[in-house]
Amino acid sequence: MSSGIGNKVKIQLFGQSHSRGLGVVIDGLPAGEKIDMERVTEFLRRRAGGRNAYSTPRAEADVPDILSGLVNGVTCGAPLCAVFENANTRGADYERLRAVPRPSHADYTAHVKHSGYNDVNGGGHFSARLTLPLCFAGAVCLQILERRGVKVDAHIFSVGDVKDDGYGDGIGTSINTETENASPKDADTQTNAARMASPPFPTLNESAGEKMKAVITEAAKRGDSVGGIIECGIWNLPVGLGEPIFDNLESRLAYALFAVPAVKGVEFGAGFASASMYGSEYNDPFYMDGGTVRTSTNNSGGILGGISNGMPIILRAAFKPTPSISLPQKSVNLQTGEDTELTVTGRHDPCVVPRAVPCVISAAAITILDFLETARI
Amino acid sequence: MSSGIGNKVKIQLFGQSHSRGLGVVIDGLPAGEKIDMERVTEFLRRRAGGRNAYSTPRAEADVPDILSGLVNGVTCGAPLCAVFENANTRGADYERLRAVPRPSHADYTAHVKHSGYNDVNGGGHFSARLTLPLCFAGAVCLQILERRGVKVDAHIFSVGDVKDDGYGDGIGTSINTETENASPKDADTQTNAARMASPPFPTLNESAGEKMKAVITEAAKRGDSVGGIIECGIWNLPVGLGEPIFDNLESRLAYALFAVPAVKGVEFGAGFASASMYGSEYNDPFYMDGGTVRTSTNNSGGILGGISNGMPIILRAAFKPTPSISLPQKSVNLQTGEDTELTVTGRHDPCVVPRAVPCVISAAAITILDFLETARI
Amino acid sequence: MSSGIGNKVKIQLFGQSHSRGLGVVIDGLPAGEKIDMERVTEFLRRRAGGRNAYSTPRAEADVPDILSGLVNGVTCGAPLCAVFENANTRGADYERLRAVPRPSHADYTAHVKHSGYNDVNGGGHFSARLTLPLCFAGAVCLQILERRGVKVDAHIFSVGDVKDDGYGDGIGTSINTETENASPKDADTQTNAARMASPPFPTLNESAGEKMKAVITEAAKRGDSVGGIIECGIWNLPVGLGEPIFDNLESRLAYALFAVPAVKGVEFGAGFASASMYGSEYNDPFYMDGGTVRTSTNNSGGILGGISNGMPIILRAAFKPTPSISLPQKSVNLQTGEDTELTVTGRHDPCVVPRAVPCVISAAAITILDFLETARI
Amino acid sequence: MSSGIGNKVKIQLFGQSHSRGLGVVIDGLPAGEKIDMERVTEFLRRRAGGRNAYSTPRAEADVPDILSGLVNGVTCGAPLCAVFENANTRGADYERLRAVPRPSHADYTAHVKHSGYNDVNGGGHFSARLTLPLCFAGAVCLQILERRGVKVDAHIFSVGDVKDDGYGDGIGTSINTETENASPKDADTQTNAARMASPPFPTLNESAGEKMKAVITEAAKRGDSVGGIIECGIWNLPVGLGEPIFDNLESRLAYALFAVPAVKGVEFGAGFASASMYGSEYNDPFYMDGGTVRTSTNNSGGILGGISNGMPIILRAAFKPTPSISLPQKSVNLQTGEDTELTVTGRHDPCVVPRAVPCVISAAAITILDFLETARI
Repeated sequence: MSSGIGNKVKIQLFGQSHSRGLGVVIDGLPAGEKIDMERVTEFLRRRAGGRNAYSTPRAEADVPDILSGLVNGVTCGAPLCAVFENANTRGADYERLRAVPRPSHADYTAHVKHSGYNDVNGGGHFSARLTLPLCFAGAVCLQILERRGVKVDAHIFSVGDVKDDGYGDGIGTSINTETENASPKDADTQTNAARMASPPFPTLNESAGEKMKAVITEAAKRGDSVGGIIECGIWNLPVGLGEPIFDNLESRLAYALFAVPAVKGVEFGAGFASASMYGSEYNDPFYMDGGTVRTSTNNSGGILGGISNGMPIILRAAFKPTPSISLPQKSVNLQTGEDTELTVTGRHDPCVVPRAVPCVISAAAITILDFLETARI
Repeated sequence: MSSGIGNKVKIQLFGQSHSRGLGVVIDGLPAGEKIDMERVTEFLRRRAGGRNAYSTPRAEADVPDILSGLVNGVTCGAPLCAVFENANTRGADYERLRAVPRPSHADYTAHVKHSGYNDVNGGGHFSARLTLPLCFAGAVCLQILERRGVKVDAHIFSVGDVKDDGYGDGIGTSINTETENASPKDADTQTNAARMASPPFPTLNESAGEKMKAVITEAAKRGDSVGGIIECGIWNLPVGLGEPIFDNLESRLAYALFAVPAVKGVEFGAGFASASMYGSEYNDPFYMDGGTVRTSTNNSGGILGGISNGMPIILRAAFKPTPSISLPQKSVNLQTGEDTELTVTGRHDPCVVPRAVPCVISAAAITILDFLETARI
Repeated sequence: MSSGIGNKVKIQLFGQSHSRGLGVVIDGLPAGEKIDMERVTEFLRRRAGGRNAYSTPRAEADVPDILSGLVNGVTCGAPLCAVFENANTRGADYERLRAVPRPSHADYTAHVKHSGYNDVNGGGHFSARLTLPLCFAGAVCLQILERRGVKVDAHIFSVGDVKDDGYGDGIGTSINTETENASPKDADTQTNAARMASPPFPTLNESAGEKMKAVITEAAKRGDSVGGIIECGIWNLPVGLGEPIFDNLESRLAYALFAVPAVKGVEFGAGFASASMYGSEYNDPFYMDGGTVRTSTNNSGGILGGISNGMPIILRAAFKPTPSISLPQKSVNLQTGEDTELTVTGRHDPCVVPRAVPCVISAAAITILDFLETARI
Repeated sequence: MSSGIGNKVKIQLFGQSHSRGLGVVIDGLPAGEKIDMERVTEFLRRRAGGRNAYSTPRAEADVPDILSGLVNGVTCGAPLCAVFENANTRGADYERLRAVPRPSHADYTAHVKHSGYNDVNGGGHFSARLTLPLCFAGAVCLQILERRGVKVDAHIFSVGDVKDDGYGDGIGTSINTETENASPKDADTQTNAARMASPPFPTLNESAGEKMKAVITEAAKRGDSVGGIIECGIWNLPVGLGEPIFDNLESRLAYALFAVPAVKGVEFGAGFASASMYGSEYNDPFYMDGGTVRTSTNNSGGILGGISNGMPIILRAAFKPTPSISLPQKSVNLQTGEDTELTVTGRHDPCVVPRAVPCVISAAAITILDFLETARI
C-alpha cells in the first residue's frame, strides 16, 4: 500500500516537504455528502505550525485547493483530490544531510532504500508535513462520521512525566464507563468524554496542561525535545464493526496510527497495564442498560475479539521526542565513511504531541469510515 | 482481508475451535524451499496445550496434514495447504454461552456481527485454537528466513508484575546494542540476543522465569488468570525494508500482532517509555563499525521512518489476562434481556503468554518474509 | 492475488492435479446462508469428467469435505473450507514432461517460473482440475445469489464453426431484449433466457447441439481437439453495480474469466462485433417500462460505463482447443537443449467447452456476489 | 480499487471532465529513473483532440504539472503526482443530460449509482478525458520499461469493416513468429513488429489506414460514429511473468484494458478465432533458437498458463462506436418518467479508436511494469 490506505474509502497521499505541492486523493467517498470547508480548514489549523512557542516557526497557509470530487461542495462519487502548496521552503538547511544523516530520522534508511535518489530536502516524503493531507482526509471523514452520529476526539495524555486524566479512570486501573444517567446513544456522556479537551493544547485537566507546557518550554530552552502520549476516543460506533482475526479493529487502527510520524507504541483500553492485571480485575462485566448491552468497566477499550462492542473505543499512541534537536549529536558521513558530529539547524517542534492530536484523530477517523463503508453488520 | 494477510506471501486461515478441521493456505511461497516437517512440528509443540500446569489441559495431536504445495518436502510454487484435525472437542461446555456471553470474550460481538449464526462452540473462529495454523505458517516462514540469515525469536518479558531482562537493557532506558567484538552480520551477538530463551517457558533470566511461574500457579489456584508481555527480536534484516507512510514495518508488524488473541498493546524499541524521554536521551547516535553504519543505542527498535536501519528489530506485545476464569462473573442473558451471573467451565490457560510466544514469533515471521519477497531494496 | 480473488467474498484455491487434496477457502460469506450440498454436488457433476464421449475418462468422486464455515449446513461467518481428494492419479503419464514441455500447455512457463521445482504431475497447480474447487465456490455463491433473485446461467455458444442461438439475437446484430409482457423483475422472461439450456451439453438450440457433438466426436477420432465459445447471462442485477474506471463490472468479470483455463478472449454484449458497427445501430435506446428504465436493444450487454444498467449482463468467453492431443507434435528437450517430437498420452477432453460451462458460471457468480457484498448502491 | 490499479506500482486517477483539474498519483515507482517530459508530452499528444478531422475539436494544452515525486527530473521513490488543468470547459452543453441520459453512455448508471449527486458535466468522472492522466502514467511506465528492454506498441487493427495487417499473420490463422535472422532479444525483428505504425493514425498497412479514414469521415458526415479494434504488442518480456490462476497476465491485462472507455472485448493471440480451430492447427510448436526456447507460431499470444513464454504478447481490444452521435435518439426523462427524444450536441469523436491507441499502450504498460516490479521470477 505504501502511501495509500483503505479498502473502500481509499486515501492516497503524495508530496514531499519541499516539492511543488502535496496532497491527497480520497477515492470511494459516498456521494451526496456536504463538506464544510470552513470546518476542514479549522481542523487543519490544529496541526499547523508557527502559532505558538510549542511548535515550529514554519508557517504555511495550508489552504486546500480542491481539484476534483466535489460539485457545489458536495461529494459526487468521484475521487476527491486536494492539493496544498509548499510556499515557505528553505532547501539550504538540508543540503548537508545528504552526507550526514540525522540520528533517529529517516535520512539514513531513505537514503539506502532509494539508493541515494531520495529527496533530502526537509525529509522529503518522510516529512511530518505529509500529515497535512492526512489531516485533510481526516477532516473530511470526520464530517461524514459526525452525520452518522460517530464522534472521534483526542487529547494529550502525557508529556514527559506529566499525565493528564484519562477518558476512563486512567491506565492501569479499570476504565469506568458508568456515568449517571448515561444513555448509550449520548456520545458526550459515555465515560467522561463529556470533559472535552480544547485545542490548541487539548487536555482534560487544565493544570496538567500547564505543567506539560512548562516541560516543553524547558526542553526547548536546552535545545532539547520531549515525547508524550495521545489518547483517542471513538464514541457511538455500532456493535459488530471489525473482521475476525486479521482485519480486526485493533489491527487496522494500529496500522493507521503507526503511519503517524514518531509513534512508537499503540495500546487499546487498559493496554500495557493489562499485562500486570488479573482476569478478575480486567474482565469487563456485562449488564443491561435499558435494552442495551453495556460493560461496567471498559478495560477492553470497546473492542472484543477485534470487534466493536458498543462501548467507547479508547486507544493511546506513544510519541517519541522530536528527533531534531539543536544539541550536537554523533553521526556518520556516508560519503567518507567516517564518524562525525552533527548539529541540526532549521525549524523544529520541541514536542510533536500538540500538533499530532489531529493526526491521531485523522488516522482513527479514516479507518473507522472505511470500516463503516465496507461493513455488512 | 478478514482471516487472510499478506501481499506476496499470503496466509489464509480457516477453521473453528470445534469444526471438523482447521488450517491454513500459504500462497506465494518461493519455489524450491525445503521444509523440515520435524522442525515445524517441534515449533507447533511450543503452542500446544496439555503439557504442563501453566496451560489448558486440552491436548490435540496437532499433526499437520499437507494437502498441497510441497513435492517431496520442497515448495513447488503452488499454494501450500495444511490441515489439522479437531479431535478432542467438547461441545457441551459451550451450549450455555449462546445466551450468556463470557465477559471480555468475543461471544457477544460475534453474536451481533453474525446475527446469531456464529459458531459458539469453543469460541468458534475466534478461538485461540486458530493460532495453530498461524504458527504452522510461522514455522514455514521461519525456515525460509533462516536460510536467508534472518532470525526471529521471542521471550516472556513479563507476567503480572514480574519482569524478565530485555533484549536491550530494558524498557524506558536506552537499549544498548554495543557488545564487544560484535560483527553486524553475527545475529547471535548483536545485542544480548546471544542470551537466547528456551521453551517451553522462555525467559532470558532464569530466576525471573521461576517467579513468573509462581505468579501463574497462584492465580490458577484462585481460579483467576494473569496477563503478561512478550518481547520479540528480529536480527539481520537488510537496511531498507518497509515502505514510506502506511506500509511501514511498524504498521505491518503491529497489524499482524494485534491479530494474536489477547494482545492489547504493541510497541517498538523504547516504545511507551519513549514518551517520557528527552530527545537527547532517546536519539540513537550513528557510528561506523567496520564499514557498516550502526547505532550505539537502539531506542528506535531497528526502525527509522518505518524502515529497517540494520539494527535488531525489537518489539513488545502486551497480553491481557485470559478472559476465561473459574470465578463467578456478571453477564447478561441475550435471550431474556436480563442481568445474570456466569461461571465459565471448560479448559483454559491461567496465562496465555507462554503459549503465545510462538504466535508472536509467527506473526513477525510471516510479515517479514512477505516484505522480503515483495521488496525491491 | 495469485490463486486468490475477491475483495469482500474472497476465494483462495489450493491443490495440484495429483497432490493429496485440493480445495478452496471462501472467506467473507455472509452468515446465516443455508447451503444445500445436494445442489452443490449436482452442479459439480456438470464439470466432472468420465461421464460421456466428450470428456476425459478420468473419474473422481469429487465429494466435498467441508472442514469449516458451516454449522448445521448454514454459514456461520467463518471461512468455509472445502477439500476434495485426488484419488485417481497416475503420475507415470507425466514423468517425461519434466524434460519435454507439451505445446500450448503451461509446462514450459511453470518450469521457468518455478525454477524447475514446479509439480509436473498432471500439470500440477495449472491443471484444469483446479476448476473443481472454483466450481464449488461458484455453486455456493449461486445459491446465495438465487436467494437475492439474481440468476446466472450459461450455454455452449459455439464449437468449431457450429453456432448456437444467442441469449440475444446473436453476435453482430442487435441483442433484442424486448419480449412481450416482460416484467423487469422476471428473470426468466428478460430476453430469451427463458430458453434455458440443459446440462450436460447445454445449448439453446438442440440441433445446433447435435452438430457440435459431431464436430467433437470427429476431432476426437483423429486424435485432435477443438475450441468453442461459452455465452453467460446474469439476470436481475440491481442498477448501479460496479465502480468507475478500474473496478468496473467488465474488468472484474474478465479478470475472473481469464482465470478459467483455455480462455483466450472475453467480450460483453455485441463485443468484437461492435467494432464494425455504427453508433446509430449500436446505441441501446432507453424507454420506460412501467416505471423502470430499460433499453430496447442490449448491445451494451447490461453494462454502461462499467456499471450495471438493469438489463441482463451478457458475456462470451472464447476457449482454445484442448492443448493435449494424441497427434505427434514438435517440442524441445529442456535438458539436452535439442528439438524433439512429443506424443501426449493420458486422459484428455477433445473439447473443454462442455465441462467449462459451470466454470464460466462460477467465475461470474463469485465476482457478482463479491460486488453485491461490497457495494453501496 | 475503483479508480486505482496496481499492486506495487499503483496508479490512482482523479478528476472529472469539467472539474478544476484532473490527474494521477503513481505510487511505487522505482527511484532513480529519469523521466523525459518532452517524450511524455509527445506521447500525450497522441490522445489529444482537436488535431484533425477524426477527433473532437476540444483542444486542451494538456501540459502536466508535476507536484511531487521527481527531483531534477528523476524519480525519488515518493509518489509522483501530475495534474492537468481543465481550461476549455463548456458546462452548458450538458445541463439537459441531468434529466435525459444519453444512450450507451454512463449518464444513467452514474445517476443511479451516485443517487443523483454525480457530476454530469461532460460525463464527469466517466469522461474519456480521464484517459489523459492514464496516458501520463503510461508514458512514464513506458520509459522505464524501455530502459529494461521491453517495448509496448499498438496499431489500429480495424475500423468498421476495414482491417489492417496484424502483428502476426492475422486473426484466425496462425500468427507466424519466425522471421529470418530474428534474435530473441531484438524486439524490432520479433514478428513483423518491425513494421511499426506511426501516429497520429497508426496502421501497419498504409492503404488500409486511408480506407479507415474514409469510413470515419463518411460516418462523421452523417452525424454517426463507428467502432474499431486496436492490436497491441509487448516485446522482450522475460519468460515467467504472471501468477498462476487469478493473477495471470491475461486477467491483469484484460482488467486494465476494460478500464479504457468503450472497450467491449479483449482477446489474446488467436483469441476468438481460436474457438473455431483444431488443436493441431492452434498449438504452437516449440523449437530451439540458439539456446532459446521459442514457438514457430504464436496463437497463444505469448502467454501459456497465464505466464509469459518469451514470445511477443499480442492482444486486441474491441471498441464500440462513440456513443455520442448527432442523430436523434430515443431516451427517457428521469424526472418526468416519460419517453423522449434526444439529440446530443457538443464536441465528440466520430471514432475513438485513433485516440485510444495510446490508452491501450498505457493500460498494457502500467500492468507490465507493475508485474516486473512485483515479480520474483
